[in-house]
Amino acid sequence: MKIAVDAMGGDSPINNIDGAIKALVDPEIEILLVGDPKELEKSLSGKDYDKQRLSIIPSEGTILDTEQPGMAVKRKPNASVNICSGLVKKGIVEGFISAGNSGATFASSAGILGMFEGLSKPCVGGPIFGFSPETLILDLGLNVDPSPKQLIDFASLGISQSKLSYDIENPTVGLLSNGSEPNKGNKLVKESFELFEKSSLNFFGNVEGHDIATGKVDVIVCDGFTGNIILKAIEGMGHVINKFIEKNITDNKYEKIINTISKNTNIMREFGGGPVMGVNGIAVIAHGASSSIAISNGINSISWLSKKNYINQLRNELEEVRSSI
Amino acid sequence: MKIAVDAMGGDSPINNIDGAIKALVDPEIEILLVGDPKELEKSLSGKDYDKQRLSIIPSEGTILDTEQPGMAVKRKPNASVNICSGLVKKGIVEGFISAGNSGATFASSAGILGMFEGLSKPCVGGPIFGFSPETLILDLGLNVDPSPKQLIDFASLGISQSKLSYDIENPTVGLLSNGSEPNKGNKLVKESFELFEKSSLNFFGNVEGHDIATGKVDVIVCDGFTGNIILKAIEGMGHVINKFIEKNITDNKYEKIINTISKNTNIMREFGGGPVMGVNGIAVIAHGASSSIAISNGINSISWLSKKNYINQLRNELEEVRSSI
Repeated sequence: MKIAVDAMGGDSPINNIDGAIKALVDPEIEILLVGDPKELEKSLSGKDYDKQRLSIIPSEGTILDTEQPGMAVKRKPNASVNICSGLVKKGIVEGFISAGNSGATFASSAGILGMFEGLSKPCVGGPIFGFSPETLILDLGLNVDPSPKQLIDFASLGISQSKLSYDIENPTVGLLSNGSEPNKGNKLVKESFELFEKSSLNFFGNVEGHDIATGKVDVIVCDGFTGNIILKAIEGMGHVINKFIEKNITDNKYEKIINTISKNTNIMREFGGGPVMGVNGIAVIAHGASSSIAISNGINSISWLSKKNYINQLRNELEEVRSSI
Repeated sequence: MKIAVDAMGGDSPINNIDGAIKALVDPEIEILLVGDPKELEKSLSGKDYDKQRLSIIPSEGTILDTEQPGMAVKRKPNASVNICSGLVKKGIVEGFISAGNSGATFASSAGILGMFEGLSKPCVGGPIFGFSPETLILDLGLNVDPSPKQLIDFASLGISQSKLSYDIENPTVGLLSNGSEPNKGNKLVKESFELFEKSSLNFFGNVEGHDIATGKVDVIVCDGFTGNIILKAIEGMGHVINKFIEKNITDNKYEKIINTISKNTNIMREFGGGPVMGVNGIAVIAHGASSSIAISNGINSISWLSKKNYINQLRNELEEVRSSI
């Protein structure tokens, strides 16, 4: 099982390298570390790892967080993220992970791997609040003005992920809205409601903001603008609450409790990111501030997704739901 | 200072009555309790309060949370919330508070009191996270598909409120978006950005979800769909975190700390709601689950707003900013 790691992406490249080494605990895994060879060799020297299962693939430059992703991906064909996508496209690796510019991971994977038929853009989703760890929410940022049909696509990709990840047989789907009644919502949600009802989805109806925390449904669908803001609002709020708790509750015996709160309000950073959904290959986005453990978890998830035949499952689910509307 | 209280609204009418009695601590305040006279007399009997400063105004029925507000307000002209609006319109009271169906409070106050010139709908806003208590966010629910010009109106109303409530001279305004860069946002935000830049507002630029918690700007503007979902997401998340903390951190010495977290993640319930912004009179919306303290706080806020000449301040600010675009 060969997996590529974008060694140049993220706030701290050393975490990519340490994460890759950690992932080698699984004897099946081989890592292709993509980046500047000189830099990588320097960082790797003196580290203890199985050299047979970790090799360096050279790339030129990386895409910065400040760059416009779509353009940068085209302007820098040999940037680390593009080399990673190319390795997946050629079938050399089963997938890749990048903690770099997430827009670039989208653009690169969509451009090089191609999207599922009929999809205009991929999406990204996952659990965003650790106390409701099996509630997926999507889209989380790429599709800021989607159509009702795109929301149906997000739901299809979400239930496929939910079935795979949590063995839920017939996941329930909710449309995120400003009220639970069927007539509540903005123009997009109102237009989508009927389509959701008509579809083969196990549609619960509209759900509200507080239902994110309680896990009322398995998959929550929203536009990427709203999803992104909520994801970050929860992170921000969690951060402030955690600082307050850490300052005021100082007993050692509560350390574990406080850690749990911290982890559960910042799960992207802790547990690695999610796969780009809707592209023809496994491309996992990690938080820019990923720890080495998060990178290692992300690598493991690629191995797992690959064994589960993830891409085909997603594609089939999408086609089935689409044919019902 | 006469103030009306919708005694029939909310999950627990007894809290309205107890809140009204609590508010009489301020010797300037006189309360007109609007509701079913028999029921109110029964609830009041045996209670200790200054009978000279609390009287009952009869109404017929109330508007339930399950009713469609706009229609119900018209169908039940003598419902408690409509009688309250009428008392403000006639100049008998300075304002009213209702913990009932919030849509009905909007519809009733907008219909009976009338809106500021050129406003198509009122809006509502306030701080939503107690750890950033001076960051106002609006709209929080009524305007689910606003125009860029409406967002400018929300900003104007917000800065007027910010000046009044916190003595901030030139409040900063942020547009809530999925990224801080000027080119980030959905269609509405992108279209609004230029208008905000052109206006006389002290425009900071785009702000992100995590900026709600840190108080980066004084006024955060968003559509009511997004605002409502975030408000409820924070409430829901706060509730789950608080339950977890209460269960696991049982030392008495931390009771105060835990209470602070609980209050700060559910400020609508604790501190009374906010005034409807953009109608020609003071109409305060309280959370359906308001405690008697929240109702009492809400009554006090009406007294304070009235002395500050709230409605005129809002109207003037709106006109000034409008004339700059």
